[in-house]
Amino acid sequence: MILTLTMNPSLDISYPLKHLVINNVNRIDDAKKTAGGKGLNVARVIQMAQKPVIATGLLGGHIGQYIQDELAKDSIAHQFLSINQESRHCIAILHDSAQTEILESGPTINQQDQQAFKQHFANLIAQADVVTMSGSLPKGIAANYYAQLIDIANKQHKKVLLDCSGQALKEALQHHEKPYLIKPNHEELGLLVNKTIDATNVEQISDILLHAPELQAIPLIIVSLGQYGALARYQQQIWRVSIPRINVINPVGSGDATLAGLAIALSEQSTLPTLLKRAMVFGMLNALEAKTGAINLAHYDALFKQIEVNLYPSPHHVSG
Amino acid sequence: MILTLTMNPSLDISYPLKHLVINNVNRIDDAKKTAGGKGLNVARVIQMAQKPVIATGLLGGHIGQYIQDELAKDSIAHQFLSINQESRHCIAILHDSAQTEILESGPTINQQDQQAFKQHFANLIAQADVVTMSGSLPKGIAANYYAQLIDIANKQHKKVLLDCSGQALKEALQHHEKPYLIKPNHEELGLLVNKTIDATNVEQISDILLHAPELQAIPLIIVSLGQYGALARYQQQIWRVSIPRINVINPVGSGDATLAGLAIALSEQSTLPTLLKRAMVFGMLNALEAKTGAINLAHYDALFKQIEVNLYPSPHHVSG
Repeated sequence: MILTLTMNPSLDISYPLKHLVINNVNRIDDAKKTAGGKGLNVARVIQMAQKPVIATGLLGGHIGQYIQDELAKDSIAHQFLSINQESRHCIAILHDSAQTEILESGPTINQQDQQAFKQHFANLIAQADVVTMSGSLPKGIAANYYAQLIDIANKQHKKVLLDCSGQALKEALQHHEKPYLIKPNHEELGLLVNKTIDATNVEQISDILLHAPELQAIPLIIVSLGQYGALARYQQQIWRVSIPRINVINPVGSGDATLAGLAIALSEQSTLPTLLKRAMVFGMLNALEAKTGAINLAHYDALFKQIEVNLYPSPHHVSG
Repeated sequence: MILTLTMNPSLDISYPLKHLVINNVNRIDDAKKTAGGKGLNVARVIQMAQKPVIATGLLGGHIGQYIQDELAKDSIAHQFLSINQESRHCIAILHDSAQTEILESGPTINQQDQQAFKQHFANLIAQADVVTMSGSLPKGIAANYYAQLIDIANKQHKKVLLDCSGQALKEALQHHEKPYLIKPNHEELGLLVNKTIDATNVEQISDILLHAPELQAIPLIIVSLGQYGALARYQQQIWRVSIPRINVINPVGSGDATLAGLAIALSEQSTLPTLLKRAMVFGMLNALEAKTGAINLAHYDALFKQIEVNLYPSPHHVSG
C-alpha cells in the first residue's frame, strides 16, 4: 500500500468566466469544486491506476468534510487526522485567457495537532510500503517537520518519496535520516546547490548529482527536465531518460502524476529502467488530460514503448 | 416572533488584498467567511436588537452546514429546510480600492423541495407575527413563488414584508393576495411603473404612490431615498421622513437593517411615525458599522431624536 501525505489540503474552486469585470459583480453558473493539494493528486492518480493507496494529512471543519466526501466520490481511501479548524479554499479564476489564483494560507497548526499527527502517521505507515510527501507545510509547522516524519518512516524501513521545495527540502536533506527519493526540477536543483542550471546541460546536472555533497546520501534522485525528459542518479550511476513529443493539454499536476508512477514502481520493486519509464509515462498521461491529477491508462503502452532509458555517459560513449 | 426568509443563502468569503495580480498567484492570510444573504442580514440585525427571530429558507451540503454553524455562533435561531445539494459561495475580493465580486448562482431547486418548503413555511409562520422575504429566488423556482408564500401567510393573517425586485416583485404585486409592505428604492419604484424617477422629486413619488393602480392594494409602501430619507404611503396618506446627515462607513446591508426595523416595529404594533423612525434609525445604524448587517444600539436614541416624520403635503401647507 502507498501512503500519500497532504499536510495542507484545499477545496479547490474553479470559476470559468469569459471576462473578469473588476470592481463589479461577476455571476457564475458552473463553479467546479474539487479536493485539491499535490498529495491528493498523487493519491487520485494511484487510485486511477488501480493500485492500493491511502491519503493522509490534516483536515478540519466543514471544508475538511467537503474534501473527504469528494475523495470518497472518487473512491480514494483516506485517513486524515481531524483538526479543530477549517481547511482552506483555493480559488482559480479562468478568464480572458488567464488564470488568476487566490490561495488561502489555511489553518495554523498547533503543537498538540503536530504531535498527534506524528503518532497517526507512525500507525498508518506500518501498513505501507512507500510514502509520498508532497507540497508545502501549513503555518505553525517548522520546516524540519518532514525530516521528523522521515525519521519515523525510516525507523520502519519504509521508502519516503519527498516532493517539496525551499526550506522544507533543505532541512530534510541536512537531516541525518534521508528520504529515499527526491525529484526536483532543474530550477529546484539549482536552488539546492546555489547554481543556475540549464535544463539542456546534461553534463552539468550529471556532475551535480554525482558530486554535490548534500545529495550523496539520497539513494535515488530524479531531475525532471520537462520536454527534455529527465536525468536520474541511482547510487553512483546516472541515467538519461528521453521522452516522445506529446500535445500537452494541461501540464498542471504532471509532477504529482510522475510521483505516483514512482511510488507504484517502488512498491512493486520494478527495475530502475522500468521505474523511470513508468514515472515518465504517468507524467505524460496527466498532461494529456484536461483535469489536473488525472490519467487515462488506455494510452499507457504506446507511450511506454517510446521512452528510452540509457546510462550516461553511455557505455559505448565511454569505451569509444 | 419574526420569521426571516432567505431562499438562496451563501457562504460569503471576503479576500482583502492590497493588489490583485491577474494571471498569477495571490496568497492570502486573512480570509473572512460569514453567513450571507439579505434575509440573514435581516435576522442578524433583529437578533442584535434582542428581539425574537427565526431565520428560514433552503440550505444544503457542507456549505449549508457551515452557514448554519456561523448563524449559531451569532446566536441566530434558524430552521432551514435541508436540500440535497450544496449551498453556494459568494466571493468578494477587496483590492486596489475596488470590490470585485464573484457570485455563484447556487443550486437549482427541484419541484419536490419547492413543495416541501411551502409546508415547512406554513408550519413556521404559525408561530410568527411577521415575516420578511428578501432577495432573489434560486434557479428552478418560478417568479411567482413569493406570491405563493404570501398566500400561505395571508391565510394565517400574518404580515409579509417583501424586499425583492424585478419579476419576483412584479408577480407578487399582480397576485390577488398582496404583501403588507414593500420598500423599493426610487429606482425600483420606477421599474415597477415604467418611469424614470428622481429621488428628490417628492411630488412625483407621492403621486405614483397614491395613484399607480398596481400599488393600491398594498397597505404600506416605503420608498427609501438614500440621504434624502424616505417617503411612505400608508393607506391613503403620504408621510415624509427626513434624516440627519451621518458619516457612512459601509452602506451595504442598510436596506436589510431598515427591513429589520420595520419588522420589529410591526410586530410590536408601533404607531406609524414611530415605525418609520425606527426603520430609518436601523438603516443608519448599519451604515455606521464596518460589518454588513450589523448595528450598535448605543447610537439609537441620538439618531431617533433627529428624525422628522410629517404628513405630506403638511396640514399647514394644505391649509395655507
